Amino acid sequence: MALLLCITQWDVAPWLDRLRRLAPGRDIRAWPEVGNPADITYVAVWKQPPGLLATFPNLKGIISLGAGVDHVLSDPTLPDVPLCRVVDGNLTTRMSEWVVMHALIHLRHQRDYDLLQRQKLWREIMPSPAAQELRVGVMGLGVLGLDAIHKLKIMGFDVAGWSRTLKQIDGIRTYADNDLDAFLARTDLLVCLLPLTPETKGLLNRSLFEKLAHDGVLGAPVLMNAGRGGLQVEKDILTCLDEGVLGAATLDVFETEPLPADSPLWSHPAVTVTPHNSAVSDEDAVGRFVLRQVERHERGLPFEAPVDRNRHY
Amino acid sequence: MALLLCITQWDVAPWLDRLRRLAPGRDIRAWPEVGNPADITYVAVWKQPPGLLATFPNLKGIISLGAGVDHVLSDPTLPDVPLCRVVDGNLTTRMSEWVVMHALIHLRHQRDYDLLQRQKLWREIMPSPAAQELRVGVMGLGVLGLDAIHKLKIMGFDVAGWSRTLKQIDGIRTYADNDLDAFLARTDLLVCLLPLTPETKGLLNRSLFEKLAHDGVLGAPVLMNAGRGGLQVEKDILTCLDEGVLGAATLDVFETEPLPADSPLWSHPAVTVTPHNSAVSDEDAVGRFVLRQVERHERGLPFEAPVDRNRHY
Ligand SMILES: NC(=O)c1ccc[n+]([C@@H]2O[C@H](COP(=O)([O-])OP(=O)(O)OC[C@H]3O[C@@H](n4cnc5c(N)ncnc54)[C@H](OP(=O)(O)O)[C@@H]3O)[C@@H](O)[C@H]2O)c1
Ligand SMILES: NC(=O)c1ccc[n+]([C@@H]2O[C@H](COP(=O)([O-])OP(=O)(O)OC[C@H]3O[C@@H](n4cnc5c(N)ncnc54)[C@H](OP(=O)(O)O)[C@@H]3O)[C@@H](O)[C@H]2O)c1
Repeated sequence: MALLLCITQWDVAPWLDRLRRLAPGRDIRAWPEVGNPADITYVAVWKQPPGLLATFPNLKGIISLGAGVDHVLSDPTLPDVPLCRVVDGNLTTRMSEWVVMHALIHLRHQRDYDLLQRQKLWREIMPSPAAQELRVGVMGLGVLGLDAIHKLKIMGFDVAGWSRTLKQIDGIRTYADNDLDAFLARTDLLVCLLPLTPETKGLLNRSLFEKLAHDGVLGAPVLMNAGRGGLQVEKDILTCLDEGVLGAATLDVFETEPLPADSPLWSHPAVTVTPHNSAVSDEDAVGRFVLRQVERHERGLPFEAPVDRNRHY
Repeated sequence: MALLLCITQWDVAPWLDRLRRLAPGRDIRAWPEVGNPADITYVAVWKQPPGLLATFPNLKGIISLGAGVDHVLSDPTLPDVPLCRVVDGNLTTRMSEWVVMHALIHLRHQRDYDLLQRQKLWREIMPSPAAQELRVGVMGLGVLGLDAIHKLKIMGFDVAGWSRTLKQIDGIRTYADNDLDAFLARTDLLVCLLPLTPETKGLLNRSLFEKLAHDGVLGAPVLMNAGRGGLQVEKDILTCLDEGVLGAATLDVFETEPLPADSPLWSHPAVTVTPHNSAVSDEDAVGRFVLRQVERHERGLPFEAPVDRNRHY
C-alpha cells in the first residue's frame, strides 16, 4: 500500500518532502523510483508519463494535483479507477483576485493610464464607464466561476454566466449550453473559466468572438481566459484584435506553455500576458488535500472532488 | 430666488445646460453673469473665487459640487449658511473600483508582471501572497471608506480601519483617532480616503510612513492616496521610496494638480500616477442631487449631506 507521486514538468522533491512530513507513517514514493509496481494503490499526478499508470495492477485511485484533469485524461491507457482533482478555497480566492483585477483594469483603462504616465500626460480617457455599465459574461459556473461571479457582482459589474447545465444564481442572469449565442450577444467582457474537454477545445475562436456584443462601453469586446490554453485559438485572437473584432485580451494560459519567446502575443499592445499564475495553489493545502483523499478512500468513502470521466471534468 | 453656479477650473457651460435641462422653470445663473446679487439664494460651488459668496446678502445655502469641501472652506470670508457636499452612490462605487484594483495590483505584483511581459519573460514572482496575507489599513471610515472596506474584505484582504471617532464594523478591526500608531503598526498597505482639514493636512509624511509595518508580505509598506493631495508630503514620499521606508505608492491626488511635468513622481518606477480620476462623478446624478438639495431647503428640510464647519468635513 503505497502512494506514488507521478510528476513531470515540476520539481518532485519538494512535493515528496511535503507529503512525507505531513504523513510520516505512510509509504510515499516518487516516480521514477516506483519499487514494486504492485505496491502502488494511489497516485497523485501532474502530467504523468503516458502509459505509466496502467502498469500498477493494484491501483485504487488517482488524484490530480491541479484543479483541471485534462493533463491526466489525455493518457489513453488510463486505468478505470476513481479520479479526483484538487479543490481548495485559497486557490479559488486567488483566481477571483485575478478575474476582478483584470476586469477592473479593462473597465478603467488602466493599461492606457500606465502609458500616459510614462509620457507624463495628465489626461482623462473618455468615456469612463462605471462597472454597472459593463456586461461581463463568465463561461463556466463551477467552483471558480461561481466565486468570480459573486465578487464581480459585488464590485458592481453587470454579470451573467454560462454553463453546460442551467444554474440558478440569485440576481444573476444565467444561460445553458444551447443558449450560448444569447449569452455572447450581451457580453462586453468575456471571462473563461471552463475546463478543457473534447467539447470545449478551441471554443474561443473567431466565430465565437464575432458573436460578442459590439455596442458596449469599451468599444470592442474583451477576452479574458484563465481556463486552459487549449480552449483558445491564438491565431484567431491575434487577427481578431487586429481587425477590431476584439478590443483586448488578457491571457493566463496558452496553447504552449511557457509561452514561446517568438509568440506575437508577448508584444501585442492590446494583450496582457500572465504566466499561468492566476491561481497559485498553497502547496501545503494541496498536500493535505491529497492525503485526506487517500485516507477517505481507504475507509470506503468517495473522493471529495470526483471527476466524471464521461464529461471529462 | 436664483441658483448660481460658481465654478472655476472646470467648464461651466455643460453644468449650466444640465441644470437648466433638469429644472426648466428655475432661475439658474452661472458666475460671472450674476445679475443682481440680492437674487442669489443658493450656490453650487467648485473652487469659487474667494470673497464672492460674501457679496450675496440673501444667500441661504452652499452646495459643494465635489465630495470634499476643502475647496469651499479655504475661503476665509465664507458666509455662515448651511453647507453640504455631494454624496452619490455611483461616485462611491467608482472609488471602490480604484481602491480594489490598485490593492490587487500591489498584492499580485501586476506592474512587475507588465515589465516581465515587455521583456518576454515567463517567470513567477515570489513570494506570491494571497489577499488574506496582506494587512490593508483604510484611513477614513466615511461614505467612501466604509464601501471600500467592505469590498476589500470580500476580496479576502485582512482589513482594518481608522477614523476620528471609533466605529463598529462587523468583522473589521477599527481604531480611533488616538490609536493611530497601533493601526499603522499592523498595516502593510495604507489606503487614505480622508478629507483635507487642518488636522489631516500633511499627515502622510515620513514620520507616519516609518510607523507602518515593515515585516509584511510585500517587503515594504505601500501607500495609496485618493483623498486629497494636501494630505501628502510628496518630498517625503520620494525619499521614503528611495530609502525603502515605502515600497511603492499609488496616488490619484497631488499637492499641485495637474501634476507638473517636472514632478519626479511621474517617472519613479515605484509610483503609479492616476489623474484624479479615481471617482469620476456622473454629472447628471450630481445635477439632480444639487436641485434636490435646493428643493429640500426651500421646503424647510435640512441638506442630505451636511458639512460640520467646526470639523471641516
Ligand atoms: N489558470 C489557472 O491557474 C487555473 C487554476 C485552476 C483551475 N483552472 C482551470 O479552471 C477550470 C475550471 O475549474 P472549476 O474548479 O471551476 O471546475 P468545475 O467546478 O468542474 O466547473 C466547470 C464548469 O464548466 C462548465 N462546463 C464544462 N464543460 C462545459 C461545456 N461543454 N459547455 C458549457 N459549460 C461547461 C461546467 O458546467 P456544469 O456546471 O453544467 O457542470 C461547470 O460549470 C479547471 O478545469 C482548470 O482547467 C485554471
Ligand atoms: N480622488 C477623488 O476623486 C475623490 C472623490 C471623492 C472624494 N474624495 C475625497 O475623499 C474624502 C472622503 O470622502 P467621504 O465621502 O468618505 O467623507 P466622509 O463621509 O465625510 O468621511 C470622512 C471620514 O474621515 C474621518 N476623519 C476626518 N477627519 C479625521 C481626522 N482628523 N482623523 C481621523 N479621521 C478623520 C471621519 O471620521 P468620523 O467617522 O469619526 O467622522 C470619517 O470617517 C473627501 O473629503 C474628498 O476629499 C476624493
